[in-house]
Amino acid sequence: MQAWLDGQPGDALGLKSRGLAYGDGVFETIAVRNGQAVLLDRHLTRVALGCQRLAIVAELAVLRDEVVRYAAALGQGVLKLIVTRGDSARGYAADPQAAARRILQGSPSPAYPQAHRAQGVELYPCSTRLAEQPLLAGLKHLNRLEQVLARAEWSDPAFAEGLMLDVSGRLVEGVYSNLFLVVDGVLHTPALHRCGVAGVMRAELLEQAATLGLQVSVGDLWPADLARADEVFVCNSVYGVWPVRAFTSLRWSPGPLTRKLQGIAHALLDA
Amino acid sequence: MQAWLDGQPGDALGLKSRGLAYGDGVFETIAVRNGQAVLLDRHLTRVALGCQRLAIVAELAVLRDEVVRYAAALGQGVLKLIVTRGDSARGYAADPQAAARRILQGSPSPAYPQAHRAQGVELYPCSTRLAEQPLLAGLKHLNRLEQVLARAEWSDPAFAEGLMLDVSGRLVEGVYSNLFLVVDGVLHTPALHRCGVAGVMRAELLEQAATLGLQVSVGDLWPADLARADEVFVCNSVYGVWPVRAFTSLRWSPGPLTRKLQGIAHALLDA
Repeated sequence: MQAWLDGQPGDALGLKSRGLAYGDGVFETIAVRNGQAVLLDRHLTRVALGCQRLAIVAELAVLRDEVVRYAAALGQGVLKLIVTRGDSARGYAADPQAAARRILQGSPSPAYPQAHRAQGVELYPCSTRLAEQPLLAGLKHLNRLEQVLARAEWSDPAFAEGLMLDVSGRLVEGVYSNLFLVVDGVLHTPALHRCGVAGVMRAELLEQAATLGLQVSVGDLWPADLARADEVFVCNSVYGVWPVRAFTSLRWSPGPLTRKLQGIAHALLDA
Repeated sequence: MQAWLDGQPGDALGLKSRGLAYGDGVFETIAVRNGQAVLLDRHLTRVALGCQRLAIVAELAVLRDEVVRYAAALGQGVLKLIVTRGDSARGYAADPQAAARRILQGSPSPAYPQAHRAQGVELYPCSTRLAEQPLLAGLKHLNRLEQVLARAEWSDPAFAEGLMLDVSGRLVEGVYSNLFLVVDGVLHTPALHRCGVAGVMRAELLEQAATLGLQVSVGDLWPADLARADEVFVCNSVYGVWPVRAFTSLRWSPGPLTRKLQGIAHALLDA
């Protein structure tokens, strides 16, 4: 489907875009089912948070309206929303007059093998570490060279995802997923106040798990915790939940908590 | 002057650009005098290093040819060169077939007050810290949100530049400059293997200082070193060298080493 630029069909962006010059903006990757943007409120909340922390002035009602209309036109697939700080001449200083710019792009749903969901995936051990930058942690901003470098570390399709640590060696996330561990019946996921992207599906699963009465822990996790884990899974807002069946020499089978949360995710995505 | 995209006049970039999506590329800001790109070889060397470390396949002979021709057409001003990894569909994985994309933009020389050069500048103490990411340190890549956040900290024109520390509190650089200190006759500048941009003018001054027989030290520096410094200056490839006359409660006068290196920089830029 043709992209929209500031609400109008468009395929090209002016070269003075601060999105291009500095990665000065945020984005969302949103599953679209039957013309509806899945987890729309959570995506918009994260955009609002990102714009607030970066002091990008975006009209959220306009964003919502455009996403809703674009999703309706797309029907099925993935909607990518980019919000940039707009344009400027040379220099890091932003023109406070410049309007934030909205880009919407649609693509078909990626054709992941069904086995990823059913039997689980193997994670590649990325050597690219995530730098600790609290000012940007949690945001889905456009400065994504660390993910580009990490994803370039493997090409073997045996690895569906890569696992990234921070510079101190903590577990953080997948290259395009968040990470969960089940240890002694407790659902654990890394805290993301130093680095990492606080995923929309992660937020949904944390809330649903609490609603189900599961014990949930968000904190620092280390590679040694993987060896103690009974279940491991990754998630994002496009594919839902994939059990992790292998990482280096470790092996797991999809467990009951993984299956339960996978059911919740896929109820949203299988519509 | 109109921009060039891959060697042809153009004003717009396709929305699938990885430069926009991920900041997946590098850039250079090059002074142009009398139709010549100043310090061209150093700029091209840094582009080559950036492309090598990011595994972007760019044809350097083509880049050089385009920069030379664009500079000749621009005459006087600033040439901005962006090299992106090209386009891709959704996802961090790069298409190895995608050709790197070259963007050249020209603008007039910025009209900095003459006093910056003559009497020196005051630096704003930025609270935005630079994260430590050795894989990207030194490169002038397109992931520049830290600089955007730092530059947004002040609007008072009394501050011509801002000083940035890393997350551990070391001195690193200005928001758009490199930093030098003179302590007991030795020229010091921060090491940039954890973070920071290894500027082209910094490299030129380090080499020229060594040629002049000055004692040069590249290493870790801390705010306490500023209190010990006899001279402080900042530099970049567009404005050359500005003495630093004030930072927080500290005051300096432009000193003899600053003036000597300023003379070298401005001989390049005042043509």
